[in-house]
Amino acid sequence: MSRKWTRSSLQVYLVMGARPRGERSAAQVLRSAILGGVTCFQFREKELPVPQQLAIGRELRAVCREFGVPFLVNDRVDLALLLEADGVHLGQDDIPVPEARRLLGEHAVIGMSAGNPQELEIALSMKPDYLGIGPVYATATKGDAGAPIGTGLIAELRRQSDLPVVGIGGIDASNAGPVLRAGADGVAVVSAIAAAADPQAAAAEIRAAAAGYHH
Amino acid sequence: MSRKWTRSSLQVYLVMGARPRGERSAAQVLRSAILGGVTCFQFREKELPVPQQLAIGRELRAVCREFGVPFLVNDRVDLALLLEADGVHLGQDDIPVPEARRLLGEHAVIGMSAGNPQELEIALSMKPDYLGIGPVYATATKGDAGAPIGTGLIAELRRQSDLPVVGIGGIDASNAGPVLRAGADGVAVVSAIAAAADPQAAAAEIRAAAAGYHH
Repeated sequence: MSRKWTRSSLQVYLVMGARPRGERSAAQVLRSAILGGVTCFQFREKELPVPQQLAIGRELRAVCREFGVPFLVNDRVDLALLLEADGVHLGQDDIPVPEARRLLGEHAVIGMSAGNPQELEIALSMKPDYLGIGPVYATATKGDAGAPIGTGLIAELRRQSDLPVVGIGGIDASNAGPVLRAGADGVAVVSAIAAAADPQAAAAEIRAAAAGYHH
Repeated sequence: MSRKWTRSSLQVYLVMGARPRGERSAAQVLRSAILGGVTCFQFREKELPVPQQLAIGRELRAVCREFGVPFLVNDRVDLALLLEADGVHLGQDDIPVPEARRLLGEHAVIGMSAGNPQELEIALSMKPDYLGIGPVYATATKGDAGAPIGTGLIAELRRQSDLPVVGIGGIDASNAGPVLRAGADGVAVVSAIAAAADPQAAAAEIRAAAAGYHH
């Protein structure tokens, strides 16, 4: 496990691609968001050509390193290696956790997604370092995310396991409470920060909402 | 460079995914094709979930190893590492050759695609082990392949460089001649073998066509 990663790194977990909406660069948005209180960053970019992903990914990686915030890469373990990421976040259709760990080494932080009881069982069997459960609320960010599942699966995980978990999907400062009350260690946020007029303020609001529930 | 890879490995280069058309498994088609004369195999599968890609990829890797045929993976360096591939084939939008070499090591065989003079210049600057130039002829296999370019770019490469090269795109035994006469070391074939009623016979025909032009 990366030394700078702890369970509380999940408190305010930003997921963002290489091209946020609006005028600002991804690096500018990320810097503001970290100043506002983001505690973990996942780079999720599936559309740009890889050479551009690597160029922008390196900028974002540098911002995270400057602030000591964990930098994870979605899906692609090869890009995580090239970007010297602290770890990866894997979906159910991605490289299995044990194989990713073989490539990334024992210090890597490896998260996995689950959206129903069967996926939860599969994910737990793979022994990731944390889970992302959702979509909790309806979201337009991820087209293939499926129907919202609420907070029940987070509560179910909590009955079974102490594994660190973030809720994801349509979460902002106004609706983070139920996710945290269900037992999540934090909330993963996409557009509520990346598309906000003031990413720093948006992150700070979510941080304040999450801080009250710190385990 | 992998010890079993030489320039003549490119003579009959099969590109296939995890699910060829028809009744046969990919491993069955690959075995027949190698018995017919295939000299190099590239696993190109972009649709199946990665766990299934890895399962079928391992079967195909075992067939290649049994016959001493180089096994390359399209695009994904992480999957190449997990499948213990001999190398990768990279497009212009994929991981740059030098970065892939950093992850795979100096013995890996790394090929790159080019489809016009500008892409050829970029590819040459990256010092791959071989080039794939095309689409030479019209093809329905790869939706994003673009309009056919004929054999002119292969001839242009030959004027500039001795780098090993295969033509790709709509090639079968009947039209391989002009590709080889233009200076290609071999032909990359997709549906002419993978979708053939008799993959072994189809591979043998292409091998016979290519053998006459062996450099």
